Amino acid sequence: MPTAVLLISCPDRPGLVHAVAEFVLAANGNVLHAEQHVDREAGVFFQRVEFELDEATLGRDQVATAFAPVANRFGMHADVHFSDERPRIAVLASREAHCLGDLLGRWRAGELPAEIVAVISNHADHAALATFSGVPFHHLPVTPDTKAAQEAALVELLRGYRVELVVLARYMQVLTSTVLDAFPAQIINIHHSFLPAFVGARPYHQAQQRGVKLIGATAHYATADLDEGPIIAQDVEPVSHRDSVADLIGKGRDLETVVLARAVRAHVEHRTLVFGNKTIVFG
Amino acid sequence: MPTAVLLISCPDRPGLVHAVAEFVLAANGNVLHAEQHVDREAGVFFQRVEFELDEATLGRDQVATAFAPVANRFGMHADVHFSDERPRIAVLASREAHCLGDLLGRWRAGELPAEIVAVISNHADHAALATFSGVPFHHLPVTPDTKAAQEAALVELLRGYRVELVVLARYMQVLTSTVLDAFPAQIINIHHSFLPAFVGARPYHQAQQRGVKLIGATAHYATADLDEGPIIAQDVEPVSHRDSVADLIGKGRDLETVVLARAVRAHVEHRTLVFGNKTIVFG
Amino acid sequence: MPTAVLLISCPDRPGLVHAVAEFVLAANGNVLHAEQHVDREAGVFFQRVEFELDEATLGRDQVATAFAPVANRFGMHADVHFSDERPRIAVLASREAHCLGDLLGRWRAGELPAEIVAVISNHADHAALATFSGVPFHHLPVTPDTKAAQEAALVELLRGYRVELVVLARYMQVLTSTVLDAFPAQIINIHHSFLPAFVGARPYHQAQQRGVKLIGATAHYATADLDEGPIIAQDVEPVSHRDSVADLIGKGRDLETVVLARAVRAHVEHRTLVFGNKTIVFG
Amino acid sequence: MPTAVLLISCPDRPGLVHAVAEFVLAANGNVLHAEQHVDREAGVFFQRVEFELDEATLGRDQVATAFAPVANRFGMHADVHFSDERPRIAVLASREAHCLGDLLGRWRAGELPAEIVAVISNHADHAALATFSGVPFHHLPVTPDTKAAQEAALVELLRGYRVELVVLARYMQVLTSTVLDAFPAQIINIHHSFLPAFVGARPYHQAQQRGVKLIGATAHYATADLDEGPIIAQDVEPVSHRDSVADLIGKGRDLETVVLARAVRAHVEHRTLVFGNKTIVFG
Repeated sequence: MPTAVLLISCPDRPGLVHAVAEFVLAANGNVLHAEQHVDREAGVFFQRVEFELDEATLGRDQVATAFAPVANRFGMHADVHFSDERPRIAVLASREAHCLGDLLGRWRAGELPAEIVAVISNHADHAALATFSGVPFHHLPVTPDTKAAQEAALVELLRGYRVELVVLARYMQVLTSTVLDAFPAQIINIHHSFLPAFVGARPYHQAQQRGVKLIGATAHYATADLDEGPIIAQDVEPVSHRDSVADLIGKGRDLETVVLARAVRAHVEHRTLVFGNKTIVFG
Repeated sequence: MPTAVLLISCPDRPGLVHAVAEFVLAANGNVLHAEQHVDREAGVFFQRVEFELDEATLGRDQVATAFAPVANRFGMHADVHFSDERPRIAVLASREAHCLGDLLGRWRAGELPAEIVAVISNHADHAALATFSGVPFHHLPVTPDTKAAQEAALVELLRGYRVELVVLARYMQVLTSTVLDAFPAQIINIHHSFLPAFVGARPYHQAQQRGVKLIGATAHYATADLDEGPIIAQDVEPVSHRDSVADLIGKGRDLETVVLARAVRAHVEHRTLVFGNKTIVFG
Repeated sequence: MPTAVLLISCPDRPGLVHAVAEFVLAANGNVLHAEQHVDREAGVFFQRVEFELDEATLGRDQVATAFAPVANRFGMHADVHFSDERPRIAVLASREAHCLGDLLGRWRAGELPAEIVAVISNHADHAALATFSGVPFHHLPVTPDTKAAQEAALVELLRGYRVELVVLARYMQVLTSTVLDAFPAQIINIHHSFLPAFVGARPYHQAQQRGVKLIGATAHYATADLDEGPIIAQDVEPVSHRDSVADLIGKGRDLETVVLARAVRAHVEHRTLVFGNKTIVFG
Repeated sequence: MPTAVLLISCPDRPGLVHAVAEFVLAANGNVLHAEQHVDREAGVFFQRVEFELDEATLGRDQVATAFAPVANRFGMHADVHFSDERPRIAVLASREAHCLGDLLGRWRAGELPAEIVAVISNHADHAALATFSGVPFHHLPVTPDTKAAQEAALVELLRGYRVELVVLARYMQVLTSTVLDAFPAQIINIHHSFLPAFVGARPYHQAQQRGVKLIGATAHYATADLDEGPIIAQDVEPVSHRDSVADLIGKGRDLETVVLARAVRAHVEHRTLVFGNKTIVFG
């Protein structure tokens, strides 16, 4: 039996949990998971409810319409997803293969409830890896002069694939609003430091220079403010004075792959909600 | 405004979440947190609901009675707690002071929503520490010959203090059913290994002998099967070939204090539910 | 300039560090790293010394001979390795691809100072993955009846490749002395629990049954006592009551790949020394 | 038998390891631990050598003199320490007790090879805690107007106690050069974030604002550049959208105590060497 996921946000007030539970019960659904959060400062209520859907009682095409009265009554923003509809992902990479290879490997192993529909790169290196995984590869080279055209082509390509999530798997090009605005809260980037430390280029060099005893990686939604978008996942690894920049880069690779995979999984399982500059990640 | 916590378990079926939400709404309460879990194999539903209690609408003495029809209808076992009623704790220790000192320090700093009402030990060592913290100290020495009498005295003492949680903070005596049966699921022990590895005595010696690269600590509810009770919290720390048994013991102290404190906090915040030999720990 | 690594063990006594340093100095070498360890209970000294080798003064073929007088004087067991001689690895896998795929990916990315010369499996599944990585694939199916013959063929194959390290990357066959004796302290296995907890089959099922709050993985040298060999690396990951066995298996995959890769790297960088049932892992 | 520790830094060149080993051997010492590090960019060699001292052959008062020829020959800066000479520590705190209480508890338990000779605070709160631990307490209140005089009094007090390490255990006053210059590389501060993120005041508020998924703590040597001194130890803890600033502060306390204790221990075990803005922390 497929499950439905409701992702809800609205002004906080009593009765919200009850109203949603009532809707699920009336639809003959069975709640599997429900988790809510209240941002007390902002007075906003957030909820993720996953329930077994009885399509004989309520077809999936009817869920949004049936829920509309509840949503209207409480001023809810509500998204509905179904467990057997797998989000369509494009993975963008530059020269480094570790994040891309890891995501493709997880996907081939059935670990990601999603479809990787395209691999796109500004370099030609990963064609064989994509092909081996049975995913179309697109080479979109870019120079400062061609950046505008390349981004336009990128957006067109992503739209052609009906992509719902763009994963920047160490894609080393800064995206402009051309791309960012076309996929709001749908682009996940991996930054190779524990943000907000070491923004910008060469964070491992910065880390080595500062003599930190931890390095980190941060997965976040990409926004116009580079490295300032809502954080989804972070992790760190101990390092020491013995670690050269090359060592940090090596250790960092493992962090980057794991943190990015964790963020992608949270997104495609519909466990993330962006509010302002923060991400609520349901368990 | 105080909050009420409902801890519920019952056979799983549709409508449970709705029924509880309806009860809270009818009582003019406002749900702050609600988390549920279904053990699919056993077909059992567990829920923790924390809500702001409007005592003008429903007095705290009436909550259990008012909830009884819901509980009966669904065959629920339900406990109710209030945030301003602080569980009464007795801490038992033997020679080592680190867990006891840590708990007392947290309590003095206001970190534990509970009252430490007594410190009890089979040695006299910690009298000054207890007194400094303003907690009565009781010395209950024990030998193999006096064990039965000592345990009887211990139970009487705990009952006299109306103790709701007994914390074995490196209390190195094995408790018999005399004590265990008097406080079911109300005794938390800290074992100095990551169970189920290294049960019994001298786990750090066992760990050094086996050459493990991690040591751990486990907080669990004490049961008749030594070191086999439901686990509440666990953590580990890396070690290496350089660590002597003394080093392991030193590193282990930090683990033990942190893991025990985490478990005690979960219990007194009414976030734990024991089911069979497992503990559900709500977030 | 290539570096040489001396791995030394001998009865402890004064003058050992000096004698080795004198040898390196006389050879016009420059010590890059030196780390020693004394097992005080056993009275045994262990050392790893890495030094820049001046082949004009001492050719690499002469190092062992030149060091022999020092080794004899102190009763040392000494191995010598060179940084530009890459150990030859065979990876054995069964159905699951995650550890195999991870090792191949690291190797393709230049992260492993070694050569993966063969992938061998009792199933045919991974032929494409091996081929994609440019590594010969061998399918050696096995049944209870053919086990002796299969192991003999396996040893012959490994010897034909002049393999120096056998990595059991979730190879689900128990090896007998036919294979174990042919590659002493040269076979690394990954076990999917934090040993010594949950030895044997289905450790994630055992973990779920016991209600632990951590799962782990252990890389160890394979010996005749299943899951009892000298531990090289271990790590854990938090889990909760919400995790099904399938969830544990999924989380465990990441642990297994990272822990196995860490152990393989330590071995091929000549940072491991087995003593009794323990592994000294130099930093 | 007491041990001696040599902490050495000098320009890198061949023969250093040999020269030190030769000195120890000539003194009839036995090397227990030796660890070295080369900063290749700077061309500087660092070493920590711990050896059993045979005072019949070389008295502890003679070690420095006996080593001087070696030090001069190689341009070494060398410090010598003895395991039975316990560094004298003053702990400074403001209102919060957790780091102070933790250090005193460890010291009472015999975990710190040092003497805590004084507790000093700008508030009167911790007098009882210090007294309970048998340590003199000094109340040195401070206002903007009296800061210069208070710092002068502080330096005088520290000198009167012949303090060798000043631990800022959540001492919330910024120290000027009056104090800093009097104790170079002898003042350890705990900052409640993973530096370089969230420098300055209220890091937990900053962390909550930024929506990070980790909080951290950093122990570092205090320098004129606030929060920019050489880092000794860092650690982090996962947090989520559910954590209020108060929750972060609570979780942070555990991090702060553990990280500060780790740094203090490394210092009093003579395992730290400051070079430029980095700290080498030997294992």
